[in-house]
Amino acid sequence: MRKYIVFISIIFAVFSLGLLASSIEKKEAEKKSLNHVSGVPTEPGKSSDWKPFYPRQYETWKKTSEKKEYVDMFDVKPKVAILRAGEDPTGAWWGHGRGHWYSNIDMMFNIITGAPNNPQDLEEWPPARCLSCHSGDTIRLMERDGKMEFYSKPLSYYAPEAQNPIGCQDCHDPKTAELSMKRDYLDKGLLSAGMKDFNSSTHQEKRSLLCAQCHVLSYTGKEEWTDKQGNKQLARTIVLPWAKGLSMEETEAYYDDPKNFPDGKPAVHIENTFSKAPTILAEHPDYELYQKGTHAKNNVACADCHLPYTQEGGVKFSHHKIGSPLENMDKTCLTCHKGKEQELKSIVKDKKGKVTKLTHTGLENLSKAHLEAAKAWEVGAKDKEMEPILKLIRKAQWRWTYVDSSFGAYMHATDESLRILAEANDYAQQARIELVKVLLNHGVKNYVAPDFKTKEEVFKFMNVPEREALIKEKCDWIKSTGKKWLKDAKANGTISEDVEKKDDVFTWFDHMCK
Amino acid sequence: MRKYIVFISIIFAVFSLGLLASSIEKKEAEKKSLNHVSGVPTEPGKSSDWKPFYPRQYETWKKTSEKKEYVDMFDVKPKVAILRAGEDPTGAWWGHGRGHWYSNIDMMFNIITGAPNNPQDLEEWPPARCLSCHSGDTIRLMERDGKMEFYSKPLSYYAPEAQNPIGCQDCHDPKTAELSMKRDYLDKGLLSAGMKDFNSSTHQEKRSLLCAQCHVLSYTGKEEWTDKQGNKQLARTIVLPWAKGLSMEETEAYYDDPKNFPDGKPAVHIENTFSKAPTILAEHPDYELYQKGTHAKNNVACADCHLPYTQEGGVKFSHHKIGSPLENMDKTCLTCHKGKEQELKSIVKDKKGKVTKLTHTGLENLSKAHLEAAKAWEVGAKDKEMEPILKLIRKAQWRWTYVDSSFGAYMHATDESLRILAEANDYAQQARIELVKVLLNHGVKNYVAPDFKTKEEVFKFMNVPEREALIKEKCDWIKSTGKKWLKDAKANGTISEDVEKKDDVFTWFDHMCK
Repeated sequence: MRKYIVFISIIFAVFSLGLLASSIEKKEAEKKSLNHVSGVPTEPGKSSDWKPFYPRQYETWKKTSEKKEYVDMFDVKPKVAILRAGEDPTGAWWGHGRGHWYSNIDMMFNIITGAPNNPQDLEEWPPARCLSCHSGDTIRLMERDGKMEFYSKPLSYYAPEAQNPIGCQDCHDPKTAELSMKRDYLDKGLLSAGMKDFNSSTHQEKRSLLCAQCHVLSYTGKEEWTDKQGNKQLARTIVLPWAKGLSMEETEAYYDDPKNFPDGKPAVHIENTFSKAPTILAEHPDYELYQKGTHAKNNVACADCHLPYTQEGGVKFSHHKIGSPLENMDKTCLTCHKGKEQELKSIVKDKKGKVTKLTHTGLENLSKAHLEAAKAWEVGAKDKEMEPILKLIRKAQWRWTYVDSSFGAYMHATDESLRILAEANDYAQQARIELVKVLLNHGVKNYVAPDFKTKEEVFKFMNVPEREALIKEKCDWIKSTGKKWLKDAKANGTISEDVEKKDDVFTWFDHMCK
Repeated sequence: MRKYIVFISIIFAVFSLGLLASSIEKKEAEKKSLNHVSGVPTEPGKSSDWKPFYPRQYETWKKTSEKKEYVDMFDVKPKVAILRAGEDPTGAWWGHGRGHWYSNIDMMFNIITGAPNNPQDLEEWPPARCLSCHSGDTIRLMERDGKMEFYSKPLSYYAPEAQNPIGCQDCHDPKTAELSMKRDYLDKGLLSAGMKDFNSSTHQEKRSLLCAQCHVLSYTGKEEWTDKQGNKQLARTIVLPWAKGLSMEETEAYYDDPKNFPDGKPAVHIENTFSKAPTILAEHPDYELYQKGTHAKNNVACADCHLPYTQEGGVKFSHHKIGSPLENMDKTCLTCHKGKEQELKSIVKDKKGKVTKLTHTGLENLSKAHLEAAKAWEVGAKDKEMEPILKLIRKAQWRWTYVDSSFGAYMHATDESLRILAEANDYAQQARIELVKVLLNHGVKNYVAPDFKTKEEVFKFMNVPEREALIKEKCDWIKSTGKKWLKDAKANGTISEDVEKKDDVFTWFDHMCK
């Protein structure tokens, strides 16, 4: 009996060893095939075409769809509506970024892109430049039609074949799979700032610069050109305001300098309905703020934390679920910070708390400044009295939106965020001090601006009856045109296989359009 | 000939080897003797008694005398005089910390300690509690006379035998040379905050707690007691305001809570001459702010950066030139931060720049708030109108002084310093908004508070004729009593040998009293 047991054990052991050897061999082969930059032998527009070659990268990229809930940020910070009063359309949905998977749909289905019916009407539709940071089809379309042609079309022109979210081809060359950057405006921006262009940068720098394709300040440039048929065209391009440098003050100076704009005036993104202040609205200076932080100073690239190296058996790959590094700290923070996970989390929480508190204080005072200025106009304030005040509000609004709009500002550059928010609040308070004087000069004592707890209260006060109508219009539009575009993209074969099944889009739609 | 060269070379090599072996042996012996905690077989009051046993520690401690220049901080920030108006005596010299070597002399020779002649007069003289953080004789005197006796005497009573600066015995047990803490109020403070007392703390914690003997918030407690002869005595003790916790808000709440004070009112350090605001003046919450910073959170002790381990041949010792860690970054920052020295320095410079800028903004607005409040009183403002404003000024002043008075706040806790300064400025600006209204209610339009560039301008405006007289009085006093105390200490043998030769004290005196 014992003999048999020994014999069977030996057979089992030998077999197991064989299995193990085979498994190691397989992993090794896979490792070779994956670490070898092989390229994708097909159309670059569809991320699903990359799936057989990069299954792990693809599967993790797909996980950017996991955060399904759509948050209307006006619910979180209703008073931002005061700051954005004057934006067209007023009181747009202001969605919190849900992850790259939703980059396209969340832009197209947002109120701000409207619900127009004529796809050719550039005036009615936003320009195709919106697609550049929201659609994974941009590079394919630009290469096919030409860059200037692309920029001269409305979003709607390309929409039926631009339904993919940001994907593989936005950062990788389809021939070699190497890091690749094809958005010309980034190189222009870098060179204007006296920096190296993408191709002259190191691999480690490229691992941040690819994010800087979109996570930067930008505005719509207008460029006239003549097409092959000799027709005059107007391209609505993307410009990064970096010619004086990347810092908060330097980009502010850029927008303040009339020389940078065709109409010879400082930039104005919104003339505020209440204060009439000509404000510039910073939108996600993520790369710019990151540059000011400890991680950048220590040569930590965006990808080190947001696309961390991950080991699966013998295979090392870059985890493409771009999102919070706190979700897998063993692969991100803990690689360098040898502390305990909970302690690090509590440090992050503390940083976030500090920035959130100053954000709140700044918003309180800046929104009050707008409303107090409105009152001043109402009681007959003169341009001369208001001019210095509006300048202060402009400075405050630039600073406040600079930090508030930047994803993860509290973590990318805590010090810088805090000092910018402190300045924002100081300018808002300076404006308010002057406003008390102006109001009193016009006979108004102890004016107290209205206060709001919810977005409903703000929008009611703002007298925006069209907000409800706009939401209804957009919801109807999604049911018709929006859904049709998805069907078109499926029919013309441009949509990535998993994206075309995205029912969760409509879960969100059901929630927002109920 | 060649033979001789070879022969001589061999002899030389053998001899050198012998020398090296002997040197190694010597270093090893020294290493044993030094790493062995041996204790000092003599009176603990004189640091020079420790010199033969700890020559390296002693020599580096002596180097704290190297920064001889005395900076009157009113030259750097003249408007602080507005914040401190009402302090007795007004417009005291406000010296920048020159290092432990000068801890005693800079306190005794400062205007604020006065120039009284009767050494027994407690009312005229500051209490002996000042010596606790300024003189290295404190522990010896307390042990000799008793703690309560010590606290019940004026500074002048002990001065002739308390001329040593902070030294060896302030942190080390004279019997074992181990880390030792004998200032009872620190343990009381720690326990009141629900923390471990010194002896229950780890060695690493002790390496910070020893600094917390003095580098903390504190105030003068009054404690009645009966001496051995049955006489009622009043001790003026040291209390740390930590019973609600160590944070800025918690210590503020402590000072705001009437229950903590015998007269049943919130603490007031200075009733400001201008605004009449009952302010609390934070003085160097260094340990408290350090606790909020990244270094503390990573278990880096004060001593790791300020008394770094140093290698001299085979001997490792703690470098006792307590000061800026930037002076020997190879032993401090670079131990953990593997970056380049220049890069780290530029990061430190950036942090300092941010904190300095917000400090400046806060001081501008807070000093204006005091002056605008003065104007409001002048034109007949009522208590009821002013009460909420004075509360705002109190909050602003607490926060601003909290950061400004703390040594190295920008480095110990950058985030925390920035957010506290941002709050300080916000409260100052809130006060100023309300002050515009009060002033207008009393018929004053567009009041602009006076501005100042130099301390001379401020003191002239403040109408402090006695400042010049006080300086003269103190200078005369130094020539007589001040110098006499040094001679007394030399005669009675209590002064450390190198300290008694401190001519540089009088270099400073020549500068200040010219």
